[in-house]
Amino acid sequence: MIKERIAALRSLMQEHGLQAYIIRGTDPHTSEYMCDHWKEITWISDFKGETGTVLVTLDEAFLWTDSRYYLQAEKELAGTGVSLMRESDIDTPTIPEWLCANMQAGWVTGVNPEMFTVQGYRMLADELAEAGITMKSIDLIKPLWQTDRPPVPQVPLYEYEVRYAGETVESKLQRVREELRKKKADTMVISALDEIAWLLNIRGLDVDFNPVVISYLLLEKDRCTLFVAPEKVNSKAQEYLTKHHISVADYNDIFKSIGALPPSAAILYDGSRLNQALYEAMPGKCRKTDSQSPVMLLKSIKNEVELEGERIAMRKDAVALTRFLRWLEEDAFRGGRTQTEYDLMLKLHEYRAMGENFVTESFGTIAGYRGNGAIVHYEATPHDCAVVRPEGMLLLDSGGQYLDGTTDITRTVWLGGDIPQQAKLDYTYVLKGHICLAMARFPRGTRGNQLDALAKQYMWQAGITYGHGTGHGVGHFLGCHEGPQNVRTDMNPTQLQPGQICSDEPGIYRTGMWGVRIENLVAVTPTPQTEAHTTDDRFLCWETLTLCYYDTGLIEMSLLTDTERQWLNNYHRRVADEICPLLGKEDAEWLRNKCKPV
Amino acid sequence: MIKERIAALRSLMQEHGLQAYIIRGTDPHTSEYMCDHWKEITWISDFKGETGTVLVTLDEAFLWTDSRYYLQAEKELAGTGVSLMRESDIDTPTIPEWLCANMQAGWVTGVNPEMFTVQGYRMLADELAEAGITMKSIDLIKPLWQTDRPPVPQVPLYEYEVRYAGETVESKLQRVREELRKKKADTMVISALDEIAWLLNIRGLDVDFNPVVISYLLLEKDRCTLFVAPEKVNSKAQEYLTKHHISVADYNDIFKSIGALPPSAAILYDGSRLNQALYEAMPGKCRKTDSQSPVMLLKSIKNEVELEGERIAMRKDAVALTRFLRWLEEDAFRGGRTQTEYDLMLKLHEYRAMGENFVTESFGTIAGYRGNGAIVHYEATPHDCAVVRPEGMLLLDSGGQYLDGTTDITRTVWLGGDIPQQAKLDYTYVLKGHICLAMARFPRGTRGNQLDALAKQYMWQAGITYGHGTGHGVGHFLGCHEGPQNVRTDMNPTQLQPGQICSDEPGIYRTGMWGVRIENLVAVTPTPQTEAHTTDDRFLCWETLTLCYYDTGLIEMSLLTDTERQWLNNYHRRVADEICPLLGKEDAEWLRNKCKPV
Repeated sequence: MIKERIAALRSLMQEHGLQAYIIRGTDPHTSEYMCDHWKEITWISDFKGETGTVLVTLDEAFLWTDSRYYLQAEKELAGTGVSLMRESDIDTPTIPEWLCANMQAGWVTGVNPEMFTVQGYRMLADELAEAGITMKSIDLIKPLWQTDRPPVPQVPLYEYEVRYAGETVESKLQRVREELRKKKADTMVISALDEIAWLLNIRGLDVDFNPVVISYLLLEKDRCTLFVAPEKVNSKAQEYLTKHHISVADYNDIFKSIGALPPSAAILYDGSRLNQALYEAMPGKCRKTDSQSPVMLLKSIKNEVELEGERIAMRKDAVALTRFLRWLEEDAFRGGRTQTEYDLMLKLHEYRAMGENFVTESFGTIAGYRGNGAIVHYEATPHDCAVVRPEGMLLLDSGGQYLDGTTDITRTVWLGGDIPQQAKLDYTYVLKGHICLAMARFPRGTRGNQLDALAKQYMWQAGITYGHGTGHGVGHFLGCHEGPQNVRTDMNPTQLQPGQICSDEPGIYRTGMWGVRIENLVAVTPTPQTEAHTTDDRFLCWETLTLCYYDTGLIEMSLLTDTERQWLNNYHRRVADEICPLLGKEDAEWLRNKCKPV
Repeated sequence: MIKERIAALRSLMQEHGLQAYIIRGTDPHTSEYMCDHWKEITWISDFKGETGTVLVTLDEAFLWTDSRYYLQAEKELAGTGVSLMRESDIDTPTIPEWLCANMQAGWVTGVNPEMFTVQGYRMLADELAEAGITMKSIDLIKPLWQTDRPPVPQVPLYEYEVRYAGETVESKLQRVREELRKKKADTMVISALDEIAWLLNIRGLDVDFNPVVISYLLLEKDRCTLFVAPEKVNSKAQEYLTKHHISVADYNDIFKSIGALPPSAAILYDGSRLNQALYEAMPGKCRKTDSQSPVMLLKSIKNEVELEGERIAMRKDAVALTRFLRWLEEDAFRGGRTQTEYDLMLKLHEYRAMGENFVTESFGTIAGYRGNGAIVHYEATPHDCAVVRPEGMLLLDSGGQYLDGTTDITRTVWLGGDIPQQAKLDYTYVLKGHICLAMARFPRGTRGNQLDALAKQYMWQAGITYGHGTGHGVGHFLGCHEGPQNVRTDMNPTQLQPGQICSDEPGIYRTGMWGVRIENLVAVTPTPQTEAHTTDDRFLCWETLTLCYYDTGLIEMSLLTDTERQWLNNYHRRVADEICPLLGKEDAEWLRNKCKPV
């Protein structure tokens, strides 16, 4: 089957004079989660992992994927003729390196420009140009994969009401148009689904975990057009869009409409998010500016209604987590029963789904028992997961999408047995960093990367660090990972602004032993003025949004300073005060005990 | 006088069709300190401050300078017809903004390209182009300022011996050529004096504070030519240069030699340091790459001999500082005498100059008494400085150039009277930050800007911050400020590497009251392996080089953690152990008392 498909692709390649063709595991919207319609690498290679790129030449075929998927890829590629390229290994060439080393000057590589951002396309083209290889924009999968291809989901889109969004679509459009004016532009093309959903106050159910609507948006001086499959716009949706003067056109007509823009149009596009096909459709005469999407920044700054929604969602999340953790401690292993990691994922989902306005999880729960906790992107599946017993460490990273907002929380708990001193030290280093970031005050103008070391300084003293970001931006009933703000080592120029939400999630990972990660969501806010300290509005700090107890049994108390202990006790008092009234009597008592001062 | 000079400039401008001319307060080598030969802004405006730019149009003339020089500029510009533009005020336009607002499209601004870096020139040209203004490279000061112009200093250059430099010129040239090869270049033009001095192991006395030689360097595949005034090369210098196969040419012949480079030459230049005139001299057909100078990075990584030299210099500096501070405490105010800030500068210089191999101070000492300590770039002069009495706060920032190495140290001391609690808090926040940075461990690959917040976190909690860098790079018997490494908020991509030296100097400034700054020099070094903690060679830390006690009377002890107190006591034990044996009996006893555990 795979061999036949690759053979068919090769004859198409020859027809078009291509010596290589690249198929990327992404969609035209640079989405984190994709619908089946775009799983082209699965179709061409049988590989079902979430990250990968396939390269087909006239006599060879390769899949590049990272170490998380090595085992899976070996199994799934067996017999397909596609070879695995182990991307995480230092000596593995990148795709352009491989092409430059193995192709001749004058040869041509085909790519589907919908699957590349403008900047990604340009970088690849530049690298290939060094070896005299040219790139051709062409979609060869579409003509081959027709009959058995799953359609783009046709679930209707719906209005996301202002009582949740906190701002009308008119107001948002006006603010975006103001930003465009500042950059001397009057037209914008958007392919990022989170930006479209935020801007138009619409939501959908097209992909896992993110309530977005597969669509494009063309914002002109006096017109705003949503390009979307007609099936998605039912009468109610149409009524809402009409009321707000949003034109609707067919999803595929975006290219025609862009091509018909007047030469006087001054187009702003975000080359790090817009797909190359849309860029290629722009008329040559238009003035084009590659600039960070103004929508991204405006969207990241949550208004008061959004923030209040987040607080509401957090309380529901805390209720679910608390009930789950009590079940885990008191019921899960009763009478010698065991659970699998997958059982825990289902159980937690069950508790979360009881929350009012719960829609979906905000990403696939990570339940990493013992050594699995040390695998940063671990995903337990029904057929491949560990058996959990009432002993050792469990890392649990999960989140929910509520109409009120998006949550993301990690707690690490000890299930039973003697706690090794190293486990306590690890937990305490992580907790100290987590608290230090949460307590930080910083002048306006500070970037997230300036704060990153605050969360790492204690583990650094012990010669330990971690490779993932300390904090990612979080959307409001949208993506659980969204920019532009974050707290990472990267040189992100974004300055933190009041209303932006980040995670605070340092971690320590001991291969084969355990993973410790502690994560709350925190929102940037001006420092309170009612203090003995000299503060003024030049300073910002974090409001901790997440409300769930920490496993104090894992803390090496001698390492906590008075200030840290005080922070912890205040937090636990707040958790008890806010969450206990929402629980049944027994749950409340159990939580109050978890929250007692240390 | 000034009016006549400006009138003469204007008629030259008209002759060349220029509507504006810019004169910059810099030299062709982007030097921090300039010799009199290049003080063109003083010649054209009478302004004698260190930073400024003059703009002359056909009917107006302006000086742009920052707030440090407002008063001085007002006095010096009086009657010259040159108006002051207060650069630090928010509503003051920049020079290009002023030009764009006041010139017509098609008009021409003249500049001397020797006084601009390539990147600075390009930025200005781009800004002016937006308003249709063009830029013309032309030196109009040279033809006007001839007879009374001070020559470039003609002090002979001298060999900086390998026993101090730790590496031969041949080895350095080979390493630089290797770096050029990696960047596909074979030729390099250097106008930065510190780079030339380091690369050729030569030093001079041409400018204040930095022992550099005014010169250019042209490095070719198989030739290395130093362009320097013939007077500077005496027979001994010539012998040294010949022995190491360094050709010598006249300083002004650099332009001819660059112009004669073969079209096959692949030139690397550092556009942030090379002057535009040299760039314009490059043949059009040569391949030119703008890239950070490889010399800068190699120079920043001190070898073992250089580091040992720094340690030697530090001990001599500590002896001088200790003797000075004892004099200040016990003698300076005896019998009701007072001192001026300038007296203190002279006295400290006196003690420092007794050190073996002392050459000059490494910058003008900052002695800031009380409110003057809060002025970050304060400079006391004989005619304008405060009277110091045995009470209140004194900030003292100074350094020396020894053949062994360069020092830079700040101590803040309390001269007498009751210490206000706020002064103690300020001193303690600064000290805590200073210690936190000094104790930091961090993984290889960490940039200075990731560590900056470690030094600020405690004062940030109190709503206080400072505007200067936390740490600048330091040269080895060269510039006291040198890159590329530093510890600042800026997004400097340089990763800290073993052998690089930085200052560690947080501060708090209370206008009209006092300034607190504490500064040591620290060198990046691998973490020691002999520890209970899990460390490995992926981690780096700092070796503290500076050896001078802190004024423990200013510490609010209740704010120090045990770890900080321990660090302080260890440091003081080290200071006493290393410095007391180098002092006379009474000085040693006095210092031992200052170093007693807290």
